[in-house]
Amino acid sequence: MIQKYPSTLLENAVNEFTKLPGIGRKTALRLALHSLRRTPEEVENFGESIINLRHNVRYCKVCYNICDSEICNICGDLSRDASTVCVVENIKEVMAIENTGQFRGLYHVLGGIISPMEGIGPNDLQIESLIERTKGSEIKEVILALSTTMEGDTTNFYIYRKLSGVDVKISIIARGISIGDEIEYADEITLGRSIVNRTNFSDTLRL
Amino acid sequence: MIQKYPSTLLENAVNEFTKLPGIGRKTALRLALHSLRRTPEEVENFGESIINLRHNVRYCKVCYNICDSEICNICGDLSRDASTVCVVENIKEVMAIENTGQFRGLYHVLGGIISPMEGIGPNDLQIESLIERTKGSEIKEVILALSTTMEGDTTNFYIYRKLSGVDVKISIIARGISIGDEIEYADEITLGRSIVNRTNFSDTLRL
Repeated sequence: MIQKYPSTLLENAVNEFTKLPGIGRKTALRLALHSLRRTPEEVENFGESIINLRHNVRYCKVCYNICDSEICNICGDLSRDASTVCVVENIKEVMAIENTGQFRGLYHVLGGIISPMEGIGPNDLQIESLIERTKGSEIKEVILALSTTMEGDTTNFYIYRKLSGVDVKISIIARGISIGDEIEYADEITLGRSIVNRTNFSDTLRL
Repeated sequence: MIQKYPSTLLENAVNEFTKLPGIGRKTALRLALHSLRRTPEEVENFGESIINLRHNVRYCKVCYNICDSEICNICGDLSRDASTVCVVENIKEVMAIENTGQFRGLYHVLGGIISPMEGIGPNDLQIESLIERTKGSEIKEVILALSTTMEGDTTNFYIYRKLSGVDVKISIIARGISIGDEIEYADEITLGRSIVNRTNFSDTLRL
């Protein structure tokens, strides 16, 4: 039998597409061939937008959300409640919570959750910066809004322990979201209500 | 409400991903954020492989298949039967037929099918080059292997008419019940045609 791909350029492009999450070889071939039906400028814009994002991405110095400047739009918005900080895994959760319109405080983006299976420890995340940010500041409440998985629970507990000496209320979003579900995919009403009905973290430990 | 994306770089990358077929906004965001977890080199390789494909893609001067040189590997393979040419829509069909291992002839890649709805006429396709290629050559048989849709039928008929003055046998791939399909659930047109075009049973035993 002849080689699978008739062109090494095509094969390279297909191989690169398959490295993206959820893209198999058939979809990768379809995407690669699709680029041949676009103008060179369109394809350049596509490729460069992703390279550009990777090279020039900036993170907010306060909350570590992705942004275009030193401080993100949320941290820079003086009308927001700076006494409440919502701890999330990633930017996707910031966007999901913002879309509920139920939260007017600030965020802290950990950049992941503690996962020994994937080799992600507390030092790989923005946990130390959260503790530092909380100490002697105007922050009165830290809301934990991580995924309701074992990794999320572990991370919640780790942060809870780390904040034990800090004079701050630690709450957790209401578990109206079913166990095992991911925050990113929750519907807005459930997600919004889970922010409004957040409960004291130490109360959940007794459950 | 705050802007949907906290960074214009991210927004651009997401917008570019959504231009790909079958990629919605949620998947696009997932893919864009995935690139932030890769090394800059990996992301460059990804983006450049696609730009490179678009800029440097070459088409075989004989069959218009994608290739790396003047003539594709199939057309350049002298052990193949140059008297039989299989007409296909795209490179994906070449790959699919090659994978069957049942065809040792050459191909002709049209680059699409006639579709008035999408504004694709005969002149947008490699039909004229097929006619030229067939005239006064060693080609004895042209096999039509296009999709069994109205567009495919139209294109088949157009090529058939165009080749009417050329001394060449025109055949079409068998339409019938797929291997593994149950007769009971086959559509009437396919079933009807499979009866009309029935083949000698002893011929099938040789396959």
